[in-house]
Amino acid sequence: MSSIDKKDLRGVFAPIPTPFGEDGELSLSAVRGNMERWAGSGLAGVVVFGSNGEAPYLSWDEKARLIEAVVEANAGRKQVIAGTGQETTRDAIRLTQKAAELGAQAALVLPPHFYKNAMTNAALATHYRAVADESPIPVIIYNMPGNTGLNLGSELVAELSNYPNIVGLKDSSGNIVQIAEIVAMAKEGFAVFAGSGSYLLPTLAVGGVGATAAVSNVFPDECAAVISLFDQGDIQRARQLQLKLMEVNRAVTSRWGVPGLKAALEIIGLYGGPPRRPMLPLGEAERQELARIIDRTGFVSQ
Amino acid sequence: MSSIDKKDLRGVFAPIPTPFGEDGELSLSAVRGNMERWAGSGLAGVVVFGSNGEAPYLSWDEKARLIEAVVEANAGRKQVIAGTGQETTRDAIRLTQKAAELGAQAALVLPPHFYKNAMTNAALATHYRAVADESPIPVIIYNMPGNTGLNLGSELVAELSNYPNIVGLKDSSGNIVQIAEIVAMAKEGFAVFAGSGSYLLPTLAVGGVGATAAVSNVFPDECAAVISLFDQGDIQRARQLQLKLMEVNRAVTSRWGVPGLKAALEIIGLYGGPPRRPMLPLGEAERQELARIIDRTGFVSQ
Amino acid sequence: MSSIDKKDLRGVFAPIPTPFGEDGELSLSAVRGNMERWAGSGLAGVVVFGSNGEAPYLSWDEKARLIEAVVEANAGRKQVIAGTGQETTRDAIRLTQKAAELGAQAALVLPPHFYKNAMTNAALATHYRAVADESPIPVIIYNMPGNTGLNLGSELVAELSNYPNIVGLKDSSGNIVQIAEIVAMAKEGFAVFAGSGSYLLPTLAVGGVGATAAVSNVFPDECAAVISLFDQGDIQRARQLQLKLMEVNRAVTSRWGVPGLKAALEIIGLYGGPPRRPMLPLGEAERQELARIIDRTGFVSQ
Amino acid sequence: MSSIDKKDLRGVFAPIPTPFGEDGELSLSAVRGNMERWAGSGLAGVVVFGSNGEAPYLSWDEKARLIEAVVEANAGRKQVIAGTGQETTRDAIRLTQKAAELGAQAALVLPPHFYKNAMTNAALATHYRAVADESPIPVIIYNMPGNTGLNLGSELVAELSNYPNIVGLKDSSGNIVQIAEIVAMAKEGFAVFAGSGSYLLPTLAVGGVGATAAVSNVFPDECAAVISLFDQGDIQRARQLQLKLMEVNRAVTSRWGVPGLKAALEIIGLYGGPPRRPMLPLGEAERQELARIIDRTGFVSQ
Repeated sequence: MSSIDKKDLRGVFAPIPTPFGEDGELSLSAVRGNMERWAGSGLAGVVVFGSNGEAPYLSWDEKARLIEAVVEANAGRKQVIAGTGQETTRDAIRLTQKAAELGAQAALVLPPHFYKNAMTNAALATHYRAVADESPIPVIIYNMPGNTGLNLGSELVAELSNYPNIVGLKDSSGNIVQIAEIVAMAKEGFAVFAGSGSYLLPTLAVGGVGATAAVSNVFPDECAAVISLFDQGDIQRARQLQLKLMEVNRAVTSRWGVPGLKAALEIIGLYGGPPRRPMLPLGEAERQELARIIDRTGFVSQ
Repeated sequence: MSSIDKKDLRGVFAPIPTPFGEDGELSLSAVRGNMERWAGSGLAGVVVFGSNGEAPYLSWDEKARLIEAVVEANAGRKQVIAGTGQETTRDAIRLTQKAAELGAQAALVLPPHFYKNAMTNAALATHYRAVADESPIPVIIYNMPGNTGLNLGSELVAELSNYPNIVGLKDSSGNIVQIAEIVAMAKEGFAVFAGSGSYLLPTLAVGGVGATAAVSNVFPDECAAVISLFDQGDIQRARQLQLKLMEVNRAVTSRWGVPGLKAALEIIGLYGGPPRRPMLPLGEAERQELARIIDRTGFVSQ
Repeated sequence: MSSIDKKDLRGVFAPIPTPFGEDGELSLSAVRGNMERWAGSGLAGVVVFGSNGEAPYLSWDEKARLIEAVVEANAGRKQVIAGTGQETTRDAIRLTQKAAELGAQAALVLPPHFYKNAMTNAALATHYRAVADESPIPVIIYNMPGNTGLNLGSELVAELSNYPNIVGLKDSSGNIVQIAEIVAMAKEGFAVFAGSGSYLLPTLAVGGVGATAAVSNVFPDECAAVISLFDQGDIQRARQLQLKLMEVNRAVTSRWGVPGLKAALEIIGLYGGPPRRPMLPLGEAERQELARIIDRTGFVSQ
Repeated sequence: MSSIDKKDLRGVFAPIPTPFGEDGELSLSAVRGNMERWAGSGLAGVVVFGSNGEAPYLSWDEKARLIEAVVEANAGRKQVIAGTGQETTRDAIRLTQKAAELGAQAALVLPPHFYKNAMTNAALATHYRAVADESPIPVIIYNMPGNTGLNLGSELVAELSNYPNIVGLKDSSGNIVQIAEIVAMAKEGFAVFAGSGSYLLPTLAVGGVGATAAVSNVFPDECAAVISLFDQGDIQRARQLQLKLMEVNRAVTSRWGVPGLKAALEIIGLYGGPPRRPMLPLGEAERQELARIIDRTGFVSQ
C-alpha cells in the first residue's frame, strides 16, 4: 500500500473511462492497452472512477478488478487515484479501504447525494471525517453538482481542509468564484483541481494545482502543456492552448458525455467501446461531427 | 408469483421506511410489527423501496430480505409493490425479476439518473421498454426529480403508457400541470398516482387514482378518507382533510425527510429507529416540533 | 371610484392582451371590439395588465389610456382589475391610485423583482403593506416566478392575508402544494386564484376561487364552465373540460406566450395584432399548428 | 458627442451607485463628490446604470439628469459608459441616443427579459442589431442572469460580435467557461469584461480585458492593480490581491447588494445614502460586520 506524496498532488489527471467489450463485460485487455499510451504521456496520473468511469454501472467486484488492472498496468509510472464515493458512510469506507489495498494512492470521494435535503453540511462533514479517519490513503473531496445535484460550498470545503487526511478537492462545478474562495479560505497547501479541462487555466490563475479532466484522456500532453506554460509565465501560449481545448472539451463532457469520450478515444486510435445501457452510443452523424471537432484542434498529426 | 390486478391500482400506498436496529442492521422484526398496523388500515398497499426506503443505502441481499419479510408479514392482505430502479438496464431487470420471485405484485421503477445529460428521452424509453419486456410483473414508472435531478416529461410518459406491461406512474414532481397533461395524453386506464400526500386531492380532481405518500405511513386512514370522500362527491370534507395533512406532510418529506418520517412513526407508536449514515437522526428540538405538528392535526386520539 | 365587492372575487378573469396597430401604437378601437365579446361571455371580469398585457412595454401614459378605454367599453358589465406592480414602492402606489381613479375596481400587484437578492420577505412585506395602505381599491398579490424569477412563499402570503385591504392572490407558480398551503394558512375568505387555466380545477379542489388565465381570452365560457360544473358537484365533466384545455393553454402561455395568445385571438375572430418588439410574431408554420390545436378542442363551432 | 476609443475598452470600470438624499430624491451633489475620488483613481472609467445604479427605480428624467451630472463632474478624466437597456427595442434606442447626446461614450445594454420565453436568440439578436444600428456610440452587451433570469449564450454573443457597432460584453454570469468560449469564438478584438470583481483575474487569464465591478467603487486601485500586475507577468501578486478581494466583493454583491455597496462607501468615507424602497438599508449588525470585512482586507490605511 502506498500513498500519494503531497508534492505529486498537482498536474493533470485523466479520469479514465471503463472499457466494455461488445458483450457488455469489462475488458481488462483494453484498459491495459490504453494505459500504455497514458503512462507514456505528460499526465501526472489517472483516476479510476472519476465521473467518466461508469462506476454507478459496475458491481463491487468489477470495480475491484478494474482498479487492480490499472494499478498493475501502470507499474508505478503514474499516480493512481480511485473514485470511492458511495451512498452510505460504511460503504464509502469499505470501498476506500479496498482501493488502498489494491494499490490506489489516493481516494476521490463523491458525496452521498440521493437524499439531497438530508445532506446538510453537518451530515456531509460527519461523512467525510469518518471516511478520512478510516482511510489508509489521502482523501480528495469531489464536488460534482452536475451529476449529484448537490453543491459542496466553500465554507464546508474550507472547514474540511483542516481535517487530517483530507488533502484536496476536485471541483466540477465550473464555478470559478467558488474555487477562488476555497483557495482563499482553505488550509495552506490544500490541493484544488479543476474538474474539467474547460477551466484549467482560470483555476491555475487563482491558485489551483491542476485538473482531472475528461479531455485529458484524449489530449494529455496539450492539457499538461497548459500547466507547464503557465508555470513558465507564458500566459499567452497557455491561453491559446486553453482556448483550443474548449470545443473538444465540451464535446466529451456536457454535450455527449461518456459516449462522446469513448468515441473520441476511438477516433484517436485508443480503445473506446460501447457504454453500458441505458447509455446509448453516439450515432454516425454525431461521430462525424466529433471527428471534425477533434480535427479542428490541430492537435492530431495526420 | 402474482401480479397486481388492474382494478387494484388505485388508492393509497404507503412507501414504507426500512427499519434498522441501533446496530445499523436491518430489523425484520420491526417491519413485521409495523406491517400489522398498516395491514389493518385503509391502505390499498405498501411500497417497499419508494424513496423513503433507503434503497440506495442497502445491499442487494438486504433488499431481497426486506421484500421477502414484507410479503410474508403482509400475508396477502394488501398489495405489495417493490421499488426496483437501478442505474443500469440489466440490474433493473434483475432486481425486478427478483422482486417478482419474492412475491411483489408490481415494480416501481425509478429512472437511471447519474449521467443526466445522457438520459435523453430515447435512452429512457429504451430502458423502460427493456425492463417491461423482461418483467414478470406490471411496471409503474417513478418520476422523482427531487432526488434524481431528472424529470420524466409528459410526452415520454404518455408514449410509454402505450407499451405492454407499463401500467402506471408515480409522479413526485408535484407539478399538477404535468400530471393533468399525462392523464389527458396517456392511454385510457393508465394509473397516475400523486407521489406525495400534499397533492392527493388535486391529482384525483384531474383524473389520478391515488397516491403513494410518505405521510400515509403515519396517517393511512386519513389519506384513504380523502379518496373515499372524493369518490362520494363530498369535496368539501375531502378538502378539509387534505388541508389538515399539508403541514405534517411537509414535515415528513421536504422538511425533515426520512429521519422525520422515522421520528413521526415513533411519535405515533410504531417502530422508527435511526436512519443509516450519512443521514442524521432528528435532534431533540426538531422532534418536539414534529410532535406538536402531529398533535395539531387532531388525527391522533389522546 | 368603486371597489370590487368581496363576493365578486371569484370566477374567471381574462388577463387581456394590449392591442397594437401595425404602426406599433396602442389601438383603443381594437380593445373596444374585443371587450364587446368578453363582456358578453361567462367571464367574471378582465385584468388589464396581467402578464399578457405587455405592461413593461408601455409608457405610463399608454397604461392610463388603456385602463380608461377598458373601463369605458366595459360599461359596468364585468369587474375590471388593473395590474399596477412597479419596481419602486412609490411608483406602485402612484399607479395604483391612478388606476383606481380611472375606474379599476381592484389592483393586481406584481412584486418588485429586479434586485432579487434584496427582495427579502421583510422588504416585500413592507412594500405590500405600503401599497395597501395607500390604495383606494383592494389589493391582490400577484406571484409570477416565471417572469419575475422570484417566488412569494406561503409564509409571506399568509401573513399578508391578515393585512387590511389585501384581499387575494393570483398565483402563477403552478405549484399546487403552495396554493393549498396558502389556502390552509391564510385568513378565512382570502381569495386565491390560479394564475393559469392549466390548474384551474386543482385550485378549486383545494379551496381556490377561480383563475385569471390567458386561455380565458380565447375560451371564456369553457373556463367558466369548469367552475360552474365543479360548483354543481359534476367533477367528471369539469375534469373533461379541464383536460381539453391543457394543450391550448400551453400554446398561449409557456409555449408561444403573448405572440401565441394574439394569434389565437385572430384565429377565433377577435383582434390580435402584432406584439411590440423585441417580441416577434408567430411564424406561419406555428400559426397553422396553433389553429390545429384550437380546432382539436372542439370548442369552436364550424 | 464622443465615442470610446477601442484601445480604451480595457481596465476597470466602476458601476457607480445612484445617490439619494434622506428625502429619497436624487442627490447630484453627492455624485459630484464621489466622482472626484473616482476620477483620481486607477479606474479606466465609470458606468452609470450598471446593475448597482438602481436604474429600474428611476424615471426617464432622473436617468438623464444623472448621466449629465456624471459627465460634467468627470470633465473628461475617465471614460463614461451609460447603461441603456430597456424592455422594448424602441425605448432602448431612445435611451441610448439620449445618453450619447448627454456625453456617454458607450452604451451598456441589458437585454429585455420580462417575457423570458419569448426572448429567443432570434428575438434578442434582432433587438441588439436594431439598437446598434441606431446608436451613435458603441454598444456593449450586458449579460446579467442573476437579475434578468436570462443568459446570453456564447453562440449568440459570438454572432453579435461580428455586427457593426457592437464592441464588447460585460458578462455577470460568473461562468468562466462561457467567458472563455466567447473569447475563443468572438471576433478578434471583441472586448470581454468580467461583470464582477470576483473573477477578474480568471477573466484576464482567458483573454478578457478587465472588469466592471461593484467592488471597484470601494477599492478602485486594488482592482486596477490586479490588471497591471497581470500585465507585468506577476501572477503571484495578482492572485494575492484577487483572493483578498473575494470576501468584500461578495459582501457588496450577492450577499448585501446595493444596500451593502452604499454602506461600504460610507465606511470608506464616500457618500452612500439610502437605497430607494422597496430596498431596505443595512441594519446596524450587518453594517458592523461589513466594516470588519473591509478592515480585514488591509486595503484601508488607518
